[in-house]
Amino acid sequence: MKNISILFIISCFTFQLSIAQYEGYSADSWKDQLEIEEIFAKQIDKTSFKKHLKKLTERPHVVGSAANEEVQRYIGEVMQNAGLVVTNYPYDLYLPKEPGTSLIEIITPSLEVLNQKEGVIPGDKFSEDPLLWKGWNAFSGSGDVTAEVVYANYGRKEDFETLKRLGVDVKGKIVLARYGGNFRGFKAKFAEANGASGLIIFTDPKDSGFTKGLVYPEGPYYNSSTIQRGSLLTSDFTGDPLTPFEPALPLDGKKKIKRLDPKDAQLHTIPVTPIGYGEAEKILGKMEGKVVPQSWQGGLPFTYRLDGGNSLTVRLKVDQKIDFVRATNVIGMIKGSEAPDEWIILGCHLDAWGFGATDPNSGTAMLLSLSETLGSLIDKGYNPKRSILIGHWDAEEHGVIGSSEWVEQMRDELNAKGVVYMNFDGGVSGKNFGASAAPTLKKLMVEASKVVKYPYTDQSLFEFWKKDNQIEPSIGSLGGGSDHIAFYMHAGVPSLSGGAGGPNLYHSNYDSFRFYKQFVDPEFKMGPMVEQMAGLMALRMANAELIPYNLNRYAVDLKIHFSNAETKIKEYDQKFEGFKMTADAIESLEKTSDELTSNIKLYLESGKFSKKELHNLNQQLIALEKSFISDQGMYFGSWFKSLYASSDPFSGYAAWILPGLEYEIALKSSNRLQEWDSRYANAVESLHLKMKQLIEDIK
Amino acid sequence: MKNISILFIISCFTFQLSIAQYEGYSADSWKDQLEIEEIFAKQIDKTSFKKHLKKLTERPHVVGSAANEEVQRYIGEVMQNAGLVVTNYPYDLYLPKEPGTSLIEIITPSLEVLNQKEGVIPGDKFSEDPLLWKGWNAFSGSGDVTAEVVYANYGRKEDFETLKRLGVDVKGKIVLARYGGNFRGFKAKFAEANGASGLIIFTDPKDSGFTKGLVYPEGPYYNSSTIQRGSLLTSDFTGDPLTPFEPALPLDGKKKIKRLDPKDAQLHTIPVTPIGYGEAEKILGKMEGKVVPQSWQGGLPFTYRLDGGNSLTVRLKVDQKIDFVRATNVIGMIKGSEAPDEWIILGCHLDAWGFGATDPNSGTAMLLSLSETLGSLIDKGYNPKRSILIGHWDAEEHGVIGSSEWVEQMRDELNAKGVVYMNFDGGVSGKNFGASAAPTLKKLMVEASKVVKYPYTDQSLFEFWKKDNQIEPSIGSLGGGSDHIAFYMHAGVPSLSGGAGGPNLYHSNYDSFRFYKQFVDPEFKMGPMVEQMAGLMALRMANAELIPYNLNRYAVDLKIHFSNAETKIKEYDQKFEGFKMTADAIESLEKTSDELTSNIKLYLESGKFSKKELHNLNQQLIALEKSFISDQGMYFGSWFKSLYASSDPFSGYAAWILPGLEYEIALKSSNRLQEWDSRYANAVESLHLKMKQLIEDIK
Repeated sequence: MKNISILFIISCFTFQLSIAQYEGYSADSWKDQLEIEEIFAKQIDKTSFKKHLKKLTERPHVVGSAANEEVQRYIGEVMQNAGLVVTNYPYDLYLPKEPGTSLIEIITPSLEVLNQKEGVIPGDKFSEDPLLWKGWNAFSGSGDVTAEVVYANYGRKEDFETLKRLGVDVKGKIVLARYGGNFRGFKAKFAEANGASGLIIFTDPKDSGFTKGLVYPEGPYYNSSTIQRGSLLTSDFTGDPLTPFEPALPLDGKKKIKRLDPKDAQLHTIPVTPIGYGEAEKILGKMEGKVVPQSWQGGLPFTYRLDGGNSLTVRLKVDQKIDFVRATNVIGMIKGSEAPDEWIILGCHLDAWGFGATDPNSGTAMLLSLSETLGSLIDKGYNPKRSILIGHWDAEEHGVIGSSEWVEQMRDELNAKGVVYMNFDGGVSGKNFGASAAPTLKKLMVEASKVVKYPYTDQSLFEFWKKDNQIEPSIGSLGGGSDHIAFYMHAGVPSLSGGAGGPNLYHSNYDSFRFYKQFVDPEFKMGPMVEQMAGLMALRMANAELIPYNLNRYAVDLKIHFSNAETKIKEYDQKFEGFKMTADAIESLEKTSDELTSNIKLYLESGKFSKKELHNLNQQLIALEKSFISDQGMYFGSWFKSLYASSDPFSGYAAWILPGLEYEIALKSSNRLQEWDSRYANAVESLHLKMKQLIEDIK
Repeated sequence: MKNISILFIISCFTFQLSIAQYEGYSADSWKDQLEIEEIFAKQIDKTSFKKHLKKLTERPHVVGSAANEEVQRYIGEVMQNAGLVVTNYPYDLYLPKEPGTSLIEIITPSLEVLNQKEGVIPGDKFSEDPLLWKGWNAFSGSGDVTAEVVYANYGRKEDFETLKRLGVDVKGKIVLARYGGNFRGFKAKFAEANGASGLIIFTDPKDSGFTKGLVYPEGPYYNSSTIQRGSLLTSDFTGDPLTPFEPALPLDGKKKIKRLDPKDAQLHTIPVTPIGYGEAEKILGKMEGKVVPQSWQGGLPFTYRLDGGNSLTVRLKVDQKIDFVRATNVIGMIKGSEAPDEWIILGCHLDAWGFGATDPNSGTAMLLSLSETLGSLIDKGYNPKRSILIGHWDAEEHGVIGSSEWVEQMRDELNAKGVVYMNFDGGVSGKNFGASAAPTLKKLMVEASKVVKYPYTDQSLFEFWKKDNQIEPSIGSLGGGSDHIAFYMHAGVPSLSGGAGGPNLYHSNYDSFRFYKQFVDPEFKMGPMVEQMAGLMALRMANAELIPYNLNRYAVDLKIHFSNAETKIKEYDQKFEGFKMTADAIESLEKTSDELTSNIKLYLESGKFSKKELHNLNQQLIALEKSFISDQGMYFGSWFKSLYASSDPFSGYAAWILPGLEYEIALKSSNRLQEWDSRYANAVESLHLKMKQLIEDIK
């Protein structure tokens, strides 16, 4: 489900490189680690990624399908053969596992039935697969409406406000909105809130088609029939729509979970369906009303209009059944030799809208190969000190559900054991590289990238990744749209997301192994590279005596984000004087985290520490990020418990850092700023005190 | 010929408003002036603009045509009836007065003859006029070539460099370049320099067509057959290509002018012709080569390519005769009652590529109505103190020729008498307002705009013109593309250009009275508004005891422009230490100009001055701008004598402030920076000394 272009919101902050040994390690164990890393790199079987990718993407495998069960089985088998302990985590989720029936017709001026499926491409066997479905949006309402049309640009909150201001009434109309600008579910939410009777979402060629480059099969961009599928779920929590806060354990299992009545679930009621731009053109080109504002103009060859006029009517019918569907996460575990109860978790979802060659299974294939490489590393006697878990999540595409249910199920364990979550959704989708991360993990990514060679140049990944004028690569902030959400924003496990990206046929029937081989990476060299990067990060996190969080980055990043928030607030509230309590707390945190960082170094250099002492200290390190976890949660949804980060509740994909403040800013409200100053000051102070305690304990 | 979007390059500088009486006036004469301005405004006949516009644009009137002679006759008659003394200034210019023959054919894969003329619009009689010609570019070479094609984006210097870098060979090919980004003549110059055999220039819908809004006849944007005509002349001077520095006086006249041999003139040799995007699509859509860089993609519905491949060949034939053509400027004069030898000059060209409703004759109609208003003002006994000249220039469209020849003819007189030149090319082309001006004239525009009411709101023009967050409107720097060039950049007469703009069918057959009435200003209220603005500025310049140049603006603007230039130079020359001599000179100038401004105020308040004294002081004021006139001129062309401003010799339209420096910057050269520091320091010091002398003389 990850939309790379939106996920990787780049932060412009850069800091000085450390060339010393990596933090958290004593001199001796760092020497060992360098040896392990070298052996690890040699163990990577460079043919393995391609083999797994081909196998995983043989058939379209939407959650609940037989083909998806086959993918689960294959994943479990590969990990088991590699020596991992594999556990399946089944859930019964409330979701539509099939598109049901749908129809789009132009009724007047003359009947025209619109095509809703990608065309068959001569020479592309995949495009003929009988298991491929027409384009659909999961969690559409069901209905059959005939109405005039309105074009609503990206269907964002501000777009519907613009329509209102321009005197265009959406009530009872079928809205056409283009993909982009927000999570598609919000297009449906705002269309419905404005009284629309239905919604057709199309891909505009200006955003993803011929305007960007050559189209499939000549190039990697959307052709006129390419359709973006995707979920519309927009609850104010993430995961199964009937079980917020609780795991949607099987209906027939021992433990009974209380579920919402489906009629109380936060679901859309209007019919919604996606189409390609070739078909959208047939409607848009017949519109006769007011001309759009300049920024709403798309790439089709005519001037776009806001309303269609009364000689143009369209019928939209969707009949989509929502019911309980069995989904299963498949998790492999390598038990840590010294600290088995400290978990390094890597993951990627397994379900796909079609074949899923880039999204998600390039990430899956990479993780399968990684489990084999780690297996052979263990065979050579190098068992990681902490446990490494590799999670293959189900039902991500329907609303990041499998991973969320697992986090809800394992909440207490994760609270005590979760060191880090690393997400690789579609992690090998091109030849570029991008990343987003929690503050304490940015350095981990940067340092690891210096060791990895980028395959198509003589450069390291670090050199390739960073821009010419940068000292080091930009790492963005985590937003919505993939499986890190529950780990990071609900449970407070520091998370990162990384991988290779590029142009791709996102959520379409064309995202196949053939497409991958022709346009994404014909030489299949990016998979092994991302595998090395992921493995290095996991091993560095697993083998250090003390968990190598980059502790002084908290204060650095907090200062920037509070300053940004204050600037935004002052734009609507000139009297606002800043978050003074929090500023003081950050000041203290900065000094203390610097002191702690130095002391940890001295402590590790001293060589005087027991296993038990380390265990105790690591438990405290794991607890640090929990300072930002608030029971009360956010005002836009209490499931979002992190004060530090959330997805944007008005767009779904974008990253909100300090979401408590961002929500007030979005509402242009000043009422709760004092309250937030106090809540943030408490959180930072709690983090500060934990660091103080650590300083005491390593004296 | 003016291209408004490029001419009005906006400076972001703003300064504090003066609300005191206008500079240059004594208290008594300012009181008189306010009375005159009120009477003047009342004298404006609000029906006159429309009447003249309709008459001027009855037929297409390219220079040299009978219809253009009729326009000259009408202009002279109107001004004469208004009481002005009218003089015709004839020249024999070397130019093509007709398109000759031309042909564009797709030869392979299959023969297709492309249309080169705007379609007839049902209900638009103008579009059927038999005097309308097909699209053409004056000063094309003649030739008949068949070749493969290359797409060169805007055909700028950097675009051809990009093609080279991407391995696309232009040699022998027919280049397709889209309008925009530079003066079209440079597209031809660079295409020829890179070995192209021909050039087709098309309007892309992304730049001027359906992407911008509804197309003609439904809206004011280019439809698929709309063609931008225009000259390709790119000599390193402005005006008649055979007579740089000299007026191209009639061949049969008494005074014989030495002319270049046509074969030594700087003319293009390859055939060049323009087409609309409907026809361009037929070629571009068949191209099969490399995909363009993202920024080169236009608005046609496919991915643009750099080369066409060898299965696509195109024939381009142009046979265009260049010969001597009689052109005539028509100039009306109101003799000043007190200082007849101080000239306030207003102007607009009269020739057009078609009907010329917006470009240029909205400006012409406004000036005709203004001459009538000034006539009736004189009838009421209010003769301006200085002379007011209204110049209607011929042959502007072929290369800003008529006005340049006149400036060359009147050089000595202008040097002594030219107070200001105000250009109104297409000055009433829409409902927005924009302006560019020499530093000493910016305040004149701003202050006058406060007195003028903007017709479609309750605001003053000032309020309408400035943006919400501005203290006062932005005024740009004068670039190329219209009749101010010779006045300002060759002769050093402070100039401004202003007027109302908006979307229009630039240089096409559709720029008719019907188009104007339907889309530009159906109520014809903008003409009288611009007339009031122009008249106010002229009368304020004409009636002040001392010419009201805003003297302390020189130093303010120079500081900004030198700082900008230094920043640009330091980007390629880290050792560069700045223009220290000039900086010192500007420092002195700043103090002295402030002192002079205060002293002038005191002097005028004293009331003790004789006519003779004023005459002497005004002569000195006129001489100030000449400090920037260098005999040696610019390295890119010695005809450009102003050290202060020129058009960009690499693009034609853009404004170069401090062109001596801009040229070095464009070449990334450091060799002559010292020399320029000295030349600029001398110019500023000369201006400074003249101001010192003025301070002495008014003691």
